[in-house]
Amino acid sequence: MKFTITKEAFLDVLQQVQHVVSSRATLPILSNVLIEAASGSIRLTATDLDVGVSAVISADVQQDGATTLPVKRLASIVRELPASEVSVEVGSDNQASIKSGPSFFKIIGLGEEEFPPLPTFDDGKEYKIPQALLLNALKKTSYAISNDETRYVLNGVYVSFKEGKVTFVATDGRRLAMVENDLEYPASNEADIIVPAKAVAELQRMLSDDGDVHVQLSGSQISFEIDGSLIVSKLIEGNYPNYKQVIPGQRKERLSISREDFLNTIRRVSLLTSESSNSVKLSFSQGSVDVQANSKEIGNAEESIPADYNGEEFSIAFNPTFLMAPLKNLNEETIYLDLIDSMSPGVVRIDESFLYVIMPMRVTQQK
Amino acid sequence: MKFTITKEAFLDVLQQVQHVVSSRATLPILSNVLIEAASGSIRLTATDLDVGVSAVISADVQQDGATTLPVKRLASIVRELPASEVSVEVGSDNQASIKSGPSFFKIIGLGEEEFPPLPTFDDGKEYKIPQALLLNALKKTSYAISNDETRYVLNGVYVSFKEGKVTFVATDGRRLAMVENDLEYPASNEADIIVPAKAVAELQRMLSDDGDVHVQLSGSQISFEIDGSLIVSKLIEGNYPNYKQVIPGQRKERLSISREDFLNTIRRVSLLTSESSNSVKLSFSQGSVDVQANSKEIGNAEESIPADYNGEEFSIAFNPTFLMAPLKNLNEETIYLDLIDSMSPGVVRIDESFLYVIMPMRVTQQK
Repeated sequence: MKFTITKEAFLDVLQQVQHVVSSRATLPILSNVLIEAASGSIRLTATDLDVGVSAVISADVQQDGATTLPVKRLASIVRELPASEVSVEVGSDNQASIKSGPSFFKIIGLGEEEFPPLPTFDDGKEYKIPQALLLNALKKTSYAISNDETRYVLNGVYVSFKEGKVTFVATDGRRLAMVENDLEYPASNEADIIVPAKAVAELQRMLSDDGDVHVQLSGSQISFEIDGSLIVSKLIEGNYPNYKQVIPGQRKERLSISREDFLNTIRRVSLLTSESSNSVKLSFSQGSVDVQANSKEIGNAEESIPADYNGEEFSIAFNPTFLMAPLKNLNEETIYLDLIDSMSPGVVRIDESFLYVIMPMRVTQQK
Repeated sequence: MKFTITKEAFLDVLQQVQHVVSSRATLPILSNVLIEAASGSIRLTATDLDVGVSAVISADVQQDGATTLPVKRLASIVRELPASEVSVEVGSDNQASIKSGPSFFKIIGLGEEEFPPLPTFDDGKEYKIPQALLLNALKKTSYAISNDETRYVLNGVYVSFKEGKVTFVATDGRRLAMVENDLEYPASNEADIIVPAKAVAELQRMLSDDGDVHVQLSGSQISFEIDGSLIVSKLIEGNYPNYKQVIPGQRKERLSISREDFLNTIRRVSLLTSESSNSVKLSFSQGSVDVQANSKEIGNAEESIPADYNGEEFSIAFNPTFLMAPLKNLNEETIYLDLIDSMSPGVVRIDESFLYVIMPMRVTQQK
């Protein structure tokens, strides 16, 4: 195998695939990236056996072939190379010679036949999703994924293809984020799946705002093809909880408020929360909301922000981290907080399809 | 106590003093900053009992007084304040009310009488050192300080006032950095001291290129007054090793080379070192030096750089981290590497007063 490529392009493609490689890979071959050179392009593939990523880039291929090389070391070498062009040559012993300007590196690889192949999807269900739709839905839900490994069905984003819609849900049991969009697919393609957090992170890295994603679903595996690059992942098996029953019914009150002002105020006031008193209290009155935190040993904080509110005066307390999470991940100027009473879940909404249910905390008594 | 100050100025002075506070302070009062307001300025003081830092800033003081407040929390609050002005008011209960725009914070402090006073220096030796001289000397030596706590005399910079000179030395036993400058002081002020690494770090943070530092030395304590701010530190007690005996005598060969090129080449080549083979080999020949690394399990790297060299052909191996350290901390375009043979220490020099002795490693055999 022999090819020449620009340093920039090589580094870019290495960075696309290397995140999937664990620094504590169980098998030596899983620390390596598979490099396949053929007909004017090279394909790089990395996998941790659960999630695999593969990307193609054009290169001046002088001799076809394949090998595997330690990906983190290769990326750190390419990053430091002195010239703008790199030439890579690999012999039958899987030793790669890397030349760039005055630099010469030889690194020891492993045979490509040892590399575990990515699963294939010959007779699966197929979907075409606009990249912008998928990226937007994952950004607005993925922060609510649970990382509690004992609740493994919650360690991913639930994706439901049903009745001409695609619905994305993530929850950790204390808050829940959901986005729903119309999508065309044959009725026979209706399905409910759970895409693991690591694949969701890889997807968010690779998606852009243009073009489509080609999704294939087969048994317990899913693949996403994005502009010639590929993300393949095992699905999480199990039953996702019935999320619909936690979404409150009719709202009683609605607060309409500047997302950024609300976020900044909560961030400031939450500086006076503590482990034993980790809540901010929102008190609503005509035209404003008052945000307070109170920790006996530390002190207290209070700030009032103008808001569009015409309902009854009452208070509710939330975990500030959970309340800030959607505000950080939305772009809208104005958000709504829909409420029933101090004891019922609140719902953050925007003008588009999105909702975020958040459980209230017991209102702590101000002294 | 009551004062008003700009957010910027308050944050700046808090950041100057807060580094000295350990996140695991042994006494609650050591997590706090002493704030003293009087006659148009406030003085902030923090200490970990070994090193103390004190800084003054002008403020609109409406009522004199003093208190202590948790410094990390205070800094994090001030950083997030929404308006450009802050007003602080503290009552006799040491509760501080902090107001800025719509934000109101109350934080609980401790009485200033509990705060350990910084040592005083009534009858000590005094020195006046240009800030630029001290900053330059510490930058060029401090990276060689040992952090091996069992060799506590090496855990600081040795400073010797002798024969009209001031000499700075740092070593960890495998490399040694030294800077020497002329300085005026009375002969009765000759002294040898060891300034601990933490005080050296605080000094580097506070020093600028203009003006003088007023140094006072008394018993086992030293103070540095810089533009009204103060750093006070315990000295390390013990005998510093006789560093002069490790400086090689007459050089046999001299390499003159671009500092930046040399640094970049060593950085790249050292990517192919490993724990079991952590050295780079330099091979000198007419007009160039060849830099190589070789790790049996990983591979090898080689790069040649043009250099001014007219001596005998030979090779020497160094720990790449130790060889790069001075190159990173110098500014000079050209540096010299003075050598005797493969087995003797090398010396990095520049045209100014500076030297860095580095022990060679056994030359590993290239295959």
